[in-house]
Amino acid sequence: MVNLGDQLPNFKANTTQGNIEFHSWLNGKWGILFSHPDDYTPVCTTELGRAAKLAPEFEKRGVKLIGLSCNSASSHSGWIKDIEAYSSLSGQFPFPIIADEKRELAVQLGMLDPDEKDSAGLPLTCRAVFIVDQNAKLKLSLLYPATTGRNFDEILRVVDSLKLTVEKKVATPVDWKAGDKCMVIPSVKAEDIPKLFPKGVEIANVPSGKQYIRLTPQP
Amino acid sequence: MVNLGDQLPNFKANTTQGNIEFHSWLNGKWGILFSHPDDYTPVCTTELGRAAKLAPEFEKRGVKLIGLSCNSASSHSGWIKDIEAYSSLSGQFPFPIIADEKRELAVQLGMLDPDEKDSAGLPLTCRAVFIVDQNAKLKLSLLYPATTGRNFDEILRVVDSLKLTVEKKVATPVDWKAGDKCMVIPSVKAEDIPKLFPKGVEIANVPSGKQYIRLTPQP
Repeated sequence: MVNLGDQLPNFKANTTQGNIEFHSWLNGKWGILFSHPDDYTPVCTTELGRAAKLAPEFEKRGVKLIGLSCNSASSHSGWIKDIEAYSSLSGQFPFPIIADEKRELAVQLGMLDPDEKDSAGLPLTCRAVFIVDQNAKLKLSLLYPATTGRNFDEILRVVDSLKLTVEKKVATPVDWKAGDKCMVIPSVKAEDIPKLFPKGVEIANVPSGKQYIRLTPQP
Repeated sequence: MVNLGDQLPNFKANTTQGNIEFHSWLNGKWGILFSHPDDYTPVCTTELGRAAKLAPEFEKRGVKLIGLSCNSASSHSGWIKDIEAYSSLSGQFPFPIIADEKRELAVQLGMLDPDEKDSAGLPLTCRAVFIVDQNAKLKLSLLYPATTGRNFDEILRVVDSLKLTVEKKVATPVDWKAGDKCMVIPSVKAEDIPKLFPKGVEIANVPSGKQYIRLTPQP
């Protein structure tokens, strides 16, 4: 399993777009490695269709997508035709899908869902999402079971938040959406605020009298 | 760390509502154990306020909430006054917060964010969310870093999906919201559909000709 801050290994994999080494594949960009339980299954078809539709949004944010399941590359390629038809996609399918037929990556990265088994009784992959930075370091993870399709708006939302934190010294509050007010991170000293946040900072009054809730327009 | 399907241990903990043993505390219900990095910090204040406001929604769904950070119970209790003031809450704060001062649970359950350290240089807890069933078995997990506040609408959405799967034989597609169409899970045989799904099932036509995309109104 991988925890926040861990670097994902530089694994080699066969994909629908040929062989890759993970770190070289990232090529200095952020990445989202996301697994699905099985090709030719309903929820996965809706998810990969939505991911493909949103591919330009991820690209705009400098984030590469790569799927994974324990099926073969030829199974993936056949299934992609169904995804394209069901989600009315056109053009080339925008991201590779890893063929982890021997479950090596699924086991190594802790992506299995013991409640979901294939016809041979082997566990399938869950709906994992690993968002990594350009050094393949894990920034955020989701593990959803086979029966709960993910929310790609939420995945875009957290990408926006993660990128903001890297580029500006802000964090994002609960339920934040792009454009909402952000929060100055605790390590920023009061004296550095005017220079760092020229749009102004508003400090909330709370019973403790501590001045830690510092809101600022999204930088 | 805990993976999907693992049972969370029956840990003992000191909380803002006294000592608990986790399994007895669940008391036959589902639970959400969620950690935050630190008391008296901005994003956490917005999150716990929102969680408190949504407490009746979680209760309606038979799901108990319990927070956790590496602060003392008295720190939590002082900070709760700030949360209540900032989020305009009234009445008793609706859920306990675990005081994991020695970081024992945070380490055992893999809740640490190595990028966030306290003044002594020790790592703080990340924003973990562990949704467990009545047997403390992990159904879904999120690990968000300190700088990205969670989305409690998404947490409610996945609770609704998880509960639907347990009670009816459906899964939920990408971006599903309560009331949207659901998907018949692959293990349901065609001959059992009329009895199980009296509202009807619509099968999507896809190039493979396989009949696996089976939509039905939410049962």
